[in-house]
Amino acid sequence: MEFTVKQIAGLIGGEIEGSETLTISQLSKIEEGKPGTISFLSNPKYEPFLYTTEASAVIVDKSFEAKKSFQTTLIRVPNAYTAFTQLLEQYEKLVKASKSGIEQPSYIASSTTIGDHCYVGAFAYVSEHCIIGHNVKIYPHAYIGENVKIGDNTVIHSGVKIYHNSVIGANCTFFANVVIGSDGFGFAPQEDGTFKTIPQLGNVVVGDNVSVGAGTTIDRATMGSTLIQNGVKLDNLVQVGHNVEIGTNTVIAAQTGIAGSTKIGANCMVGGQVGFGGHISVPDNTKIGAQSGVNKTWEKSGLSLNGTPAIQMKDSLRSLAIFRKLPQLEKKISALETIIKESSDSQ
Amino acid sequence: MEFTVKQIAGLIGGEIEGSETLTISQLSKIEEGKPGTISFLSNPKYEPFLYTTEASAVIVDKSFEAKKSFQTTLIRVPNAYTAFTQLLEQYEKLVKASKSGIEQPSYIASSTTIGDHCYVGAFAYVSEHCIIGHNVKIYPHAYIGENVKIGDNTVIHSGVKIYHNSVIGANCTFFANVVIGSDGFGFAPQEDGTFKTIPQLGNVVVGDNVSVGAGTTIDRATMGSTLIQNGVKLDNLVQVGHNVEIGTNTVIAAQTGIAGSTKIGANCMVGGQVGFGGHISVPDNTKIGAQSGVNKTWEKSGLSLNGTPAIQMKDSLRSLAIFRKLPQLEKKISALETIIKESSDSQ
Amino acid sequence: MEFTVKQIAGLIGGEIEGSETLTISQLSKIEEGKPGTISFLSNPKYEPFLYTTEASAVIVDKSFEAKKSFQTTLIRVPNAYTAFTQLLEQYEKLVKASKSGIEQPSYIASSTTIGDHCYVGAFAYVSEHCIIGHNVKIYPHAYIGENVKIGDNTVIHSGVKIYHNSVIGANCTFFANVVIGSDGFGFAPQEDGTFKTIPQLGNVVVGDNVSVGAGTTIDRATMGSTLIQNGVKLDNLVQVGHNVEIGTNTVIAAQTGIAGSTKIGANCMVGGQVGFGGHISVPDNTKIGAQSGVNKTWEKSGLSLNGTPAIQMKDSLRSLAIFRKLPQLEKKISALETIIKESSDSQ
Repeated sequence: MEFTVKQIAGLIGGEIEGSETLTISQLSKIEEGKPGTISFLSNPKYEPFLYTTEASAVIVDKSFEAKKSFQTTLIRVPNAYTAFTQLLEQYEKLVKASKSGIEQPSYIASSTTIGDHCYVGAFAYVSEHCIIGHNVKIYPHAYIGENVKIGDNTVIHSGVKIYHNSVIGANCTFFANVVIGSDGFGFAPQEDGTFKTIPQLGNVVVGDNVSVGAGTTIDRATMGSTLIQNGVKLDNLVQVGHNVEIGTNTVIAAQTGIAGSTKIGANCMVGGQVGFGGHISVPDNTKIGAQSGVNKTWEKSGLSLNGTPAIQMKDSLRSLAIFRKLPQLEKKISALETIIKESSDSQ
Repeated sequence: MEFTVKQIAGLIGGEIEGSETLTISQLSKIEEGKPGTISFLSNPKYEPFLYTTEASAVIVDKSFEAKKSFQTTLIRVPNAYTAFTQLLEQYEKLVKASKSGIEQPSYIASSTTIGDHCYVGAFAYVSEHCIIGHNVKIYPHAYIGENVKIGDNTVIHSGVKIYHNSVIGANCTFFANVVIGSDGFGFAPQEDGTFKTIPQLGNVVVGDNVSVGAGTTIDRATMGSTLIQNGVKLDNLVQVGHNVEIGTNTVIAAQTGIAGSTKIGANCMVGGQVGFGGHISVPDNTKIGAQSGVNKTWEKSGLSLNGTPAIQMKDSLRSLAIFRKLPQLEKKISALETIIKESSDSQ
Repeated sequence: MEFTVKQIAGLIGGEIEGSETLTISQLSKIEEGKPGTISFLSNPKYEPFLYTTEASAVIVDKSFEAKKSFQTTLIRVPNAYTAFTQLLEQYEKLVKASKSGIEQPSYIASSTTIGDHCYVGAFAYVSEHCIIGHNVKIYPHAYIGENVKIGDNTVIHSGVKIYHNSVIGANCTFFANVVIGSDGFGFAPQEDGTFKTIPQLGNVVVGDNVSVGAGTTIDRATMGSTLIQNGVKLDNLVQVGHNVEIGTNTVIAAQTGIAGSTKIGANCMVGGQVGFGGHISVPDNTKIGAQSGVNKTWEKSGLSLNGTPAIQMKDSLRSLAIFRKLPQLEKKISALETIIKESSDSQ
C-alpha cells in the first residue's frame, strides 16, 4: 500500500512543507528513516536526526523551528506525537488481517454460546456453559474452561488458558500463553510435615479494556474473586496471587509478583520485578520503582516508593547514595578512632 | 445444591446454636458473608465481623465466647478452620466435574499405555512408549514426550509440556503451561567467542503429591536427574535449573529461581523472587525471605536467611534498619570530624 | 545399545589402561558412576571420586597421575572434558529420535512453503505466507503467525508462539512455551487517567544459532525490530522488551528482564534475575551479577557490574561487606560521640 504525502497530510489535518507527491509505504523512527517512509519529531532530543534523516517525510509540531537545513518534507500538525499515533493506528488496521469464522478442527462444547463475528482458531478448546460475546477472537491452542464469560471485542491469543468460572470484560487483550484462574498457592501445614491443599473455590474477574502480557499468570481466589479492574495493563510474566485486587488503570511492568490478598489502588505505576508481600495494600496513585519489595501497607496516596523493603523514593535514594560511600565512611570512623585514641594516650 | 444448617453440622460433627433449618448454598469469607452462605471464624482478628456478618451460619471453635450480640447461627466444632476446610473439600468435589474418557481429536501413540478412568482432552498429544497410570487427567494442549511415566491420579492441566524420559509420581498437579524437562542451560565457551551446546541427557524425576504452579519451568539434568521430592509445592513462574534437588515437603513461592546443581533440603520455606546461585546447598528446615539471593552453602539446619547476599534474618534486619538511617549516620560522622578538627585547632 | 571400552577409545582417540572388553551402555557423573557406565575426570576437585567410583571406565587427561589405587579402567586423551562432550553428542544423536513428516491433524496455510525433511507435529498451526526452511522441526501446539520466516535446522518446541512478521535464523532452538513477537508494553496516558494502546508495528528478528529457554518472552518492536543477534543464549523465563537489541554470543541467565529500547553488547554474560531499565546500553564483554539492577548506560567495555543500582563489582562487594557490619559501625559512632561528649564535659 502506498500513499502520497498529500493523502497523509489530509488524513491527519497537516500542512505540507516540501513535496506533496512523494509516496510513502512504511512508518519509521526518525533515526532509522529510509526513503519511502514517514517519521515524526516530538522529543527535542531527536531534533538532530531531522537534519540527517533519509525519511521522505517527517511530521512535526506546528511551532517547530528548524535550526539547520534538511532534505525531508515536513507535515506540520498541532501535536506531532498524537498525529503519528493516529497514523500508526490506521496503518495497523490495514495490515492486521481481521480473522473471523470457526476454523476446523476446533472444540466448542454444545452448551456454549458464541456471539456474532467471532473467530475461533483451529485447535482452540471452549468448554461447556461458556458465554462468548460478539467479535471475540480466540486464537489456536487457547483453552477456555467451563462456565467462562468473555465480553465483546476481547482478543484471546494463542496458548492462553482461562480456567472455569472466570469472568472477562470487553475490549481486553490477553497475549500468548497467559494463564487466568489457576489455583492460588494455598496449603495448610499438617503435623507430619506434609501440606494439605486448600481448595481454591473462587474465580478471577477481569474488567473492560484490560491488557495482559505474554506468560502472565493470575490465580483464582480461595473464595470470592481475584479482581483486575477496568483499564489495568499488565506486562509479560507478571504473577498475581489469589484474592489480589488491582485498581482501575494501574500499570504494572514485567516480572512483578503480587502475593495473595494484596490490594493495589487505582492509577498506580509499578516497575518491573517488583515484589509485593501478602495481605497488604497500597493506595491510589502510588509509584513503585523497579525491583522494589513492598512489605507493608501504605496509607497515603500519591507516594513514590523504592527499595527492599520499600521506603519513600527520596529516602531510598539518599541511603543508596551513602551505601556506595560506605568504604570511605568506614575509613573516616577508623581515622576518628585513631585520633581520639592518640589524643587520650597523649594526655 | 442446598443444604440445611443441620445437615452441615452433621457432616462436620458440630453443635448448632441458632436455627437448624436455614438453607445454605454457598461458602463465604466472614467479612463478605451474604444470606444463604456459611462462613467460619478462626483468627481472632476477624472476630468483629462475626457481629456484623450477613452469613446465615458461621463455624466457630468450641471454646469461642462472644463479646457482643450477633444475628448469625453458630456451629461449634473442636477446630473451626479444619472443619471449614473439610467443607471446602466436599464442596469442591461436588462442583468439580470429574472428566473422563478420550476426547477427539487427540494424539496417543500406539506404543503408549493409558490406565483406567483417565481423561485425555482434545488436542492433547502423548508420544510413544509412555506409561500413564490410572485416573490420570491430561487436559487439552498438554504435550507428553517419549518414554514418560505418570503415576496414578495425577492431573496435567492445559498447555503443560513434559519432555521425554520424565518420571512423574502419583497425586501430582501441574497447572497450565508448566514445562518439565526442557534442556538445562549448558553451553561450553569456544575460543572464537561462540558457545557450544552441552547435550542435556538426563531427565526430571518428580515424586508423589507434588504441586507445580502455572508457567513454572523445571529443566532436565545434564546427566542423572533433576529431583523434586515427595510433597514439594512450587508456586507459579518458578525456574528450577538442571540437576537441582528439592527436598521433601519444601514449599517455594512464585518467581523464585534456582541455578544448576543446587540442593535445597526438606521442609524448607522459600519466599517469592528468591534467587539461588549454582552448585550450593541449603539444609532442611531453612526459611528464606522474599527477594533474597542465596550465594553460598549453609550447613546448619533451621536457619532463617534474608537479603542479597543472604545472611541470617536477624542480622539482615539489623543492617537494613541502619541502612535507612545512613543519612543521619553520615551527619554524625561529619559532626564528629568537625568537633575533632576544632578541638585540635584550638590546642 | 552397548559398546566396548575399545570401541569408545577408538571413537575419541584415547589410550586404554585396563580392560578393553568391558561393555558400556550409559554415561554417568564420576560421583554417581555405576557398573556399565563411563564417566570423565577433568576438574581436580573430583579426583577423590576416581578412587571410589563404580563406573566401568573413566576418561582422563593424558597427563593425569593417580595418587592412589583404583578399580576402574582409564581412557587417556589430550583433553578429557572435550572427549566426553564428543561422546555426549554422539550418544544424544543415537537416543534422540529424529522426527520428520507432517502429522495430522495439523494446520498449514496454503500460501506457506515448507522445506525438505521438516517435521510438523499434530496440532501445530502455521499461518499464511510463511517460509519455513529445510530440516525445521515444529512440534505439537506450536503457533506460527502470518508472514514468518524460519531458517534451516531450527527447532520449535511444543507450545512455542511466534507472532506475525518474525524473522528467525538457522540452527536455532526455541524451548517449550517461548513467545516471540507479542506486543511491546506501550501505552500513552490520556487526560482521564486511562491509557491508549500504542500500536506495535515492528517485528522480532532472531539471528542464527540462538537458543531461547522455556517460557521466555521477546516482544515485537513498536517500529523497526527487536534484535537478537547470532549465537545469543537466553535461559528460561527471560523477558525482552520492545526494540531491545542483544549482541552476538551474549548469554543471559533465567528470569532476567530487559526494558524497552535497551541495547546489550556482544559477548556479555548476564546473571539470573537481573533487571535492565529502558533506553540504556551496556557495551561488549560486560559481566553482570545475578539480581543486579542496571539503571544507566555504561560506556567502557569489559566491566563487571553488580548490585541495585548496579555499580562496579569490586565497589559493590566492598559496600556489601560493610553493609553487614553496619550495626558495629553504628556502635563505634555512638562510642566516639560518648567519648567526645565526656571529654568536652570534663574540660
